Amino acid sequence: MLKIGEGSYVLLFHTPRKKWLAKVTPDKKMHTHLGIVDVGATIGMEYGSVIRTTEGKVIFLIEPTTHDFIMKSERKTQIVYPKDLGFIAARTGMKNGSKVLEIGTGSAAAATFFASIVKPEGRIHTYDVNPDFMEIAKRNLEKAGMADYVTMNRHDPHEGVDVREADVAIVDLGDPWTVIDQVHDALKGSGAFVAICPTMNQIEKTATELKKGGFVDIESIELFIRVMEAREGMTRPSMRMIGHTTYLVFARKVQKKAEAPVEEEEAGEQEE
Amino acid sequence: MLKIGEGSYVLLFHTPRKKWLAKVTPDKKMHTHLGIVDVGATIGMEYGSVIRTTEGKVIFLIEPTTHDFIMKSERKTQIVYPKDLGFIAARTGMKNGSKVLEIGTGSAAAATFFASIVKPEGRIHTYDVNPDFMEIAKRNLEKAGMADYVTMNRHDPHEGVDVREADVAIVDLGDPWTVIDQVHDALKGSGAFVAICPTMNQIEKTATELKKGGFVDIESIELFIRVMEAREGMTRPSMRMIGHTTYLVFARKVQKKAEAPVEEEEAGEQEE
Amino acid sequence: MLKIGEGSYVLLFHTPRKKWLAKVTPDKKMHTHLGIVDVGATIGMEYGSVIRTTEGKVIFLIEPTTHDFIMKSERKTQIVYPKDLGFIAARTGMKNGSKVLEIGTGSAAAATFFASIVKPEGRIHTYDVNPDFMEIAKRNLEKAGMADYVTMNRHDPHEGVDVREADVAIVDLGDPWTVIDQVHDALKGSGAFVAICPTMNQIEKTATELKKGGFVDIESIELFIRVMEAREGMTRPSMRMIGHTTYLVFARKVQKKAEAPVEEEEAGEQEE
Amino acid sequence: MLKIGEGSYVLLFHTPRKKWLAKVTPDKKMHTHLGIVDVGATIGMEYGSVIRTTEGKVIFLIEPTTHDFIMKSERKTQIVYPKDLGFIAARTGMKNGSKVLEIGTGSAAAATFFASIVKPEGRIHTYDVNPDFMEIAKRNLEKAGMADYVTMNRHDPHEGVDVREADVAIVDLGDPWTVIDQVHDALKGSGAFVAICPTMNQIEKTATELKKGGFVDIESIELFIRVMEAREGMTRPSMRMIGHTTYLVFARKVQKKAEAPVEEEEAGEQEE
Repeated sequence: MLKIGEGSYVLLFHTPRKKWLAKVTPDKKMHTHLGIVDVGATIGMEYGSVIRTTEGKVIFLIEPTTHDFIMKSERKTQIVYPKDLGFIAARTGMKNGSKVLEIGTGSAAAATFFASIVKPEGRIHTYDVNPDFMEIAKRNLEKAGMADYVTMNRHDPHEGVDVREADVAIVDLGDPWTVIDQVHDALKGSGAFVAICPTMNQIEKTATELKKGGFVDIESIELFIRVMEAREGMTRPSMRMIGHTTYLVFARKVQKKAEAPVEEEEAGEQEE
Repeated sequence: MLKIGEGSYVLLFHTPRKKWLAKVTPDKKMHTHLGIVDVGATIGMEYGSVIRTTEGKVIFLIEPTTHDFIMKSERKTQIVYPKDLGFIAARTGMKNGSKVLEIGTGSAAAATFFASIVKPEGRIHTYDVNPDFMEIAKRNLEKAGMADYVTMNRHDPHEGVDVREADVAIVDLGDPWTVIDQVHDALKGSGAFVAICPTMNQIEKTATELKKGGFVDIESIELFIRVMEAREGMTRPSMRMIGHTTYLVFARKVQKKAEAPVEEEEAGEQEE
Repeated sequence: MLKIGEGSYVLLFHTPRKKWLAKVTPDKKMHTHLGIVDVGATIGMEYGSVIRTTEGKVIFLIEPTTHDFIMKSERKTQIVYPKDLGFIAARTGMKNGSKVLEIGTGSAAAATFFASIVKPEGRIHTYDVNPDFMEIAKRNLEKAGMADYVTMNRHDPHEGVDVREADVAIVDLGDPWTVIDQVHDALKGSGAFVAICPTMNQIEKTATELKKGGFVDIESIELFIRVMEAREGMTRPSMRMIGHTTYLVFARKVQKKAEAPVEEEEAGEQEE
Repeated sequence: MLKIGEGSYVLLFHTPRKKWLAKVTPDKKMHTHLGIVDVGATIGMEYGSVIRTTEGKVIFLIEPTTHDFIMKSERKTQIVYPKDLGFIAARTGMKNGSKVLEIGTGSAAAATFFASIVKPEGRIHTYDVNPDFMEIAKRNLEKAGMADYVTMNRHDPHEGVDVREADVAIVDLGDPWTVIDQVHDALKGSGAFVAICPTMNQIEKTATELKKGGFVDIESIELFIRVMEAREGMTRPSMRMIGHTTYLVFARKVQKKAEAPVEEEEAGEQEE
């Protein structure tokens, strides 16, 4: 049975929207609008146990996962959400051992998730030019225990990146089409390209440039997540919904000089 | 540079809908409606290279990923699709080293993907009662190189499972609510539960039983994937779309005897 | 040129979320957080003109449509939204001259819209048992100029309705399956049935009972509306979205005794 | 009771995907893969009755509505679908008596529906330059009984239109932004503009030009329709779905010279 130790983290869970991530130290008390939580008293308890606030409200002691660290991460930028992160991993075949190039570290939500998959032999090589973001990213990676599997580079990726033979490259820039050549150099043959594009104009430009630059299997998609209210005799979708996070553009590197005639029948095709 | 070797697999890619997965052997020829592909001749070539069929059609040599193995897997059942697999991994925090219980092996699409993430220290323990499915599952896992990280059990999970302290449990049965107790026993404290439920009736029953059986943070969701046609000056969503694959129900194990009063404000809440 | 007259209505439009519906009287001033609007001064101006608040903010003078009256209506219940109202009209073929039965008047948003289509020869016959709703409904219909085309009945429709040979019947009750016989009596041969059902349990029960009760062409659907942010070089869907309003069940009345064997090929079919 | 007469139309309905629209004449037989239907024998029967094919298959006699005429219309172009037609009517407040300008007649699916609403006092003024489309449009309008309420103009709308004081203008051209001035002239003050735009590039250009050209309340939206399989104990969305038909852009005419400063808070706003 895994017990809560000094220095570990615990997710203090009341309801899906009322939960707090805390580092456990002996004398810590957390003040919430549901009363005070005696965080120190959880030392030695099992995850999954229940305590109460000073006002008698129930708090479940949850062991935080990578998902919880990401959702509670410090951020100055829009993060990539779990639905998109998960699909990037599944669609590119990212796995234990993968070498991953990331352009645009942001607050490292994506790097945290990808590191959790590729570690311990794989590695995330991430690039950003903003020193403030890099500081936040570093703190978030350390908190989630993923800092050892991520190499952070403060360097403009437009000038080229040092990575070679990468399995997957993820570009999270406002103008992903400007680094397509650099990514082509960094990927292994048939390696996977992904761009994170909030607007339709970005997917249009990115897909157009990929076609010219030695990539095939170019696919742009969007994922929606819909929360369902599952209640006995009155199940329905939630009235609230996030309308949009981002589009994703996927492609695979091939020989640059290869003639890749766009064939008639390609238009409108999609795998089913 | 990774070269195509004898005995390895190659994805012969013409367009997104015209592609074939082949095992490479010296004399192999593949007959397609685009002409014959000389598969044996690819030995020693780099992935990402281009060859031509006897009719002069372009074929790109792509190194198959876990995604490709899953999409081209042998199957007698509906598989869980990458959008859902990726979100299960991201939402549960599944990662390298995780111990995963799966009830309902099917054709092992899910086990293949989860094994690719948790290996080499982690492990998938999967249960099914259908010997035909188990045979197909085994072949699919071997092809994708994941058989060493999956323990297959032909055993009725309603009679209990041997797994204990699992990080994540995935239930892919028609009646997931019938194994909630068994899954509670198998999970570690605050471990993650997931049920794959194509119908609304299933999510309703599953969520209702989870509330009674020592689980919190119960959330039912659905993911849609929408393909975008990104073309210069005429970008729009694809006219074709898969309308539904499955709902997913998530929860976390807590102490069974814990009073978990459903509080007023919980109704209709969701994290944003 | 249509000029604003005393006693008419004007929509004072600043932005899509800042707009007010006002009845025009000579001395009326409207106090808003954008300053005071001199409503009386609009008498004799043309719709489409611009005035300014005392704080210099622009206000466009818009002639309110049925849509504006509905969106600004007084309400104690959830209204049926324009996306659903429009589809009901289009799917049932409701048109000028139609005789419409409505069970569940609510605040008359639906009756207002339907009356605007069927008038002057057509008519809406609406039933509700709640006198408070009937009062609100009456005020809303009068404001929108539709009261003359709607017959309001305070009467429990479970006891039968007086309407016969109706072209369309719309049921907006929590348990639409309880009035299927009454609606069958009220509709003309092959007349259209519509139920407004927020939950999936309701569509399941309604569709099941319709099959037994002399109806064919039973179809359950849901409409989503997605707002797009169309801006030069950065077009994307809005981050905000209403996740769900209601499902709609459609059917057509046929002879009750008719054997209507559910044929094999009907399963899963839909028109394309 | 409405009886089927000689010269009227009947929808021969077997299942939602197997149905035929027929004009009733005394000796007519219709050959289908379900057997021969004796159409002539339906004369004098009531709508809603049942007959059988020569192979004993059930056929329901349905009175066709405007919806049925539209879905079974002759066409050489993509039609505007009922979900979009209904929302256009509901969102613009189109109603009995409205004067409607339509630019781009196509096969008159839209004109048929709009005429069914605005008749008998209202009128649709539709423009197209393609004589082939005009012929098809005329036949479709006559079949649905709406030809008397539609004025067809074979004339290039870029050169201006004769209509003035229109309540609603609908533009279904590939480049709707090229007729914004002409539509501004044709609309009454605060009249409603609608453009039918399949691509995001079209909504971007149209919205941008509307902002410059004397329009406010500019909103771009998309509607999805999702078919539900409502079956006892196994209700779920249909696996099949139409992914996209069109975007719609709405706006309202105001004084052209009016300064309409885009205010900060307008960004990202939408009515809720």
